[in-house]
Amino acid sequence: MESAHRFKLTIEYDGSRFSGWQRQENGASVQQSIEEAVLALTGARSIVHGAGRTDAGVHATGQVAHIDLARDWDPWRLREAINAHLVGRPIAITAAARAAVDFDARRHAIRRHYLYRIVNRRAPLALDFGRAWAMKRALNVEAMHEAAQALVGRHDFSTFRDSQCQANSPLRTLDSFRVRREGDNVSCEVSARSFLHRQVRSMVGSLVEVGVGKWRPADLRAALEAADRARCGPVAPACGLYLVEVEYPES
Amino acid sequence: MESAHRFKLTIEYDGSRFSGWQRQENGASVQQSIEEAVLALTGARSIVHGAGRTDAGVHATGQVAHIDLARDWDPWRLREAINAHLVGRPIAITAAARAAVDFDARRHAIRRHYLYRIVNRRAPLALDFGRAWAMKRALNVEAMHEAAQALVGRHDFSTFRDSQCQANSPLRTLDSFRVRREGDNVSCEVSARSFLHRQVRSMVGSLVEVGVGKWRPADLRAALEAADRARCGPVAPACGLYLVEVEYPES
Repeated sequence: MESAHRFKLTIEYDGSRFSGWQRQENGASVQQSIEEAVLALTGARSIVHGAGRTDAGVHATGQVAHIDLARDWDPWRLREAINAHLVGRPIAITAAARAAVDFDARRHAIRRHYLYRIVNRRAPLALDFGRAWAMKRALNVEAMHEAAQALVGRHDFSTFRDSQCQANSPLRTLDSFRVRREGDNVSCEVSARSFLHRQVRSMVGSLVEVGVGKWRPADLRAALEAADRARCGPVAPACGLYLVEVEYPES
Repeated sequence: MESAHRFKLTIEYDGSRFSGWQRQENGASVQQSIEEAVLALTGARSIVHGAGRTDAGVHATGQVAHIDLARDWDPWRLREAINAHLVGRPIAITAAARAAVDFDARRHAIRRHYLYRIVNRRAPLALDFGRAWAMKRALNVEAMHEAAQALVGRHDFSTFRDSQCQANSPLRTLDSFRVRREGDNVSCEVSARSFLHRQVRSMVGSLVEVGVGKWRPADLRAALEAADRARCGPVAPACGLYLVEVEYPES
């Protein structure tokens, strides 16, 4: 695009209301919703390039995307204007900034931070329904945290990779994985430069096997080392997952 | 009721989906929903007596109610069974316990704790829509907290009382009122034995006038001392209010 102006957008959305981040034939996607808002605003079609393609039901408080626009908007006004065209949809542009013309939200990300929320109690969820995984069986969170440390570092994550994953390599490097409890709320925070498809949900589902006592922490390590998808525990549901932050070299 | 067994229920609900706590002609109420679940479970009509009649849109994480049942349920099984009949409704019984036959959830409460949530940012709310008050103008939270201290203690709260309030006296005693910020999240926590109708929302709405600089803290004190409903600021919307806990002598 000639003489385009590139912007970086930070985006929050309620994933329960979308078929995922990516534009597709069936169902409303977050990407398409923002592109429609930008079209209504500018009169021109623009592609919104996200840092991560979150699945249906997965939420974001800090998704990042880049977009090219024909004119040089004031970032503050751009954010307000896109939000005005998103009224009634559970998507909010929380920040907009001018970006270098070669800034790439996906390729330039140096770290992605995900949060997985579990509510560990017998009662079903009223306020957090669709916002967390309701887990009735008591979780040993210390055992989950201990087991998770085996996943930190550079590993072949074939065990925790969806069969549809299109990445060239199953090797990834986890920077940190923290599991902790505050009352009934169990949070799993995991950070890496990039993740395989459904890696976080696959890891959390397997850690819950440790938490309920079906697996020992050593079983999780063995499952990792097997590099075999058949050794993964049940994949955790989408509703508990949040893309919290995407980091770039300058930020 | 002869030889009835009384139970204390602790209840969480998403108030945005109800016309309020109290049974009424139009719209689904929380009270009616629980009564229908109990009817489906026991085959008998029972009245669920709540500690507080929250308005339409007001949430609860710790509403308390009492109910009389013909037989002596195991409390754990009672909670599970009522929840099973509430599936699909945003209500959860988080605890059930046997209570004395004269236990009264409303009259015996010695302290009620409310939380009012404000998200203070320009962007609209995607994940917290209907769960907090979206306030775009920057709030001076220190000024709000300072002003709120004038409300603590025993006062005539006529200024902060809905015109429809049916309480005999406008006198109430606030035990504490704390306003604080964590990032964009502003929380107002207020505790008292009991409150007048819409008192918390009236006080928070007036404190926001202080927060945006339209009122000084001294103006809030003067509004209180006037004991005049016309001196109240705009009433804060229902969606930010949560009944968090109800305390009883034994608990």
